[in-house]
Amino acid sequence: MSIKAVVFDAYGTLYDIQSVAEVTEDAFPGYGEIITQVWRIKQLEYTWLRSLMQRYQDFAVVTRDSLAYTLRVLGLDYEKDAFERVIEKYLHLDLYPDATAALIALRPRKLAILSNGSPDMLNALVRNTKLDRLLDATISVDAKRIFKPSPAAYQLIGEELGTAPDEVLFVSSNPWDVAGGKSFGLNVAWIERVTPEAMALACVETELVAPLTMFKAIRTQMDELGFAPDHRVRALSELPGIIQG
Amino acid sequence: MSIKAVVFDAYGTLYDIQSVAEVTEDAFPGYGEIITQVWRIKQLEYTWLRSLMQRYQDFAVVTRDSLAYTLRVLGLDYEKDAFERVIEKYLHLDLYPDATAALIALRPRKLAILSNGSPDMLNALVRNTKLDRLLDATISVDAKRIFKPSPAAYQLIGEELGTAPDEVLFVSSNPWDVAGGKSFGLNVAWIERVTPEAMALACVETELVAPLTMFKAIRTQMDELGFAPDHRVRALSELPGIIQG
Repeated sequence: MSIKAVVFDAYGTLYDIQSVAEVTEDAFPGYGEIITQVWRIKQLEYTWLRSLMQRYQDFAVVTRDSLAYTLRVLGLDYEKDAFERVIEKYLHLDLYPDATAALIALRPRKLAILSNGSPDMLNALVRNTKLDRLLDATISVDAKRIFKPSPAAYQLIGEELGTAPDEVLFVSSNPWDVAGGKSFGLNVAWIERVTPEAMALACVETELVAPLTMFKAIRTQMDELGFAPDHRVRALSELPGIIQG
Repeated sequence: MSIKAVVFDAYGTLYDIQSVAEVTEDAFPGYGEIITQVWRIKQLEYTWLRSLMQRYQDFAVVTRDSLAYTLRVLGLDYEKDAFERVIEKYLHLDLYPDATAALIALRPRKLAILSNGSPDMLNALVRNTKLDRLLDATISVDAKRIFKPSPAAYQLIGEELGTAPDEVLFVSSNPWDVAGGKSFGLNVAWIERVTPEAMALACVETELVAPLTMFKAIRTQMDELGFAPDHRVRALSELPGIIQG
């Protein structure tokens, strides 16, 4: 294959969404872990549900709404400040440690992000983590007012970069995003951050489980949606090897 | 309001989806509880994702795929027989104890089901539980090849029953389904089976939680999707009071 562009999912792929856990724990002692998991689960549910309902609101709204839902469900009272401090972290998520080096190694191919994030959220995040110096484009699904895995979202890659689907390597750690990209016709690399062995081992004792284990069980293993990735790697650092190989 | 038809969601509303837990535990000792929760969570995710991907497969396929996913993630090996025994339960789910009496009390209004279920699944379930004697129609989203909460799904009510949206009381225990029905323009009653107080109480200890608690936290509390129900009741038996009141 002749890959002209490598396009990355942002949340969970280049950026560690679990890195909000420290801020949530600080704001809501004893609840950081469960907030982090329920929030992320609901955030994505809301993107899918709003898309299906034809009631699009951008990812900034969905991110706030899903956090408000989470805190209400857990019975937590809070000041506006605590809420804003947690939300603010979404503009300062931690990059995965190998992200910057992987991007550099993939040049001179075109490099871009395709994300559910709103333009404002993405631009701030990319700037705050200095990826703006490396990326050719930061593409938000907001232009189509529908979220991934709608084909309309993946179509933005070609529209923005001038590439055909088979000239693109799309990279995501999110199994549903892998299926969506593959269903659209992109080459897809899946970053498999939780191995099946580690997953099964975490589920040996199932009467009580860590919220993170439930999150992993429902959102980190390859989905049964009829579309498998072309490449399955453990880390971003393996990507240059795929393209050259 | 002048309600001419009362239309029910099936899974979770008239039928107790948690009633699969005995069969899953019997087939996979020690794992019944976590299988039940992960399976249901993924089953709905797959309806939303397939709808968004424009890769519809009917609910029978989605139900099998989500169970296969669940067993794989948990690292469970199994014989075809065990799998089929669990799937078979979906045709014999338990009715909520007050379902039949509530339907009888709501006559002579038109009574129907609008469900994600495939026609074969729904017809078998309704027949097995003797609701076929009470229902005027069992409507499957399959006719539109898209799942709830797409407006196309709720539109089937008017097409099948000849009712205007404001002549219908739609009843669901699923918060996302309540939002979808309301967004479409129906009158909506939400069966709130888990109170906010009980929910918060279950989440006081959050380091380790029961899989059922995680399920409840993400799928039983009213969602932040911008659409609230017209009526909030605790049980199906309260419905006749709403309509007469």
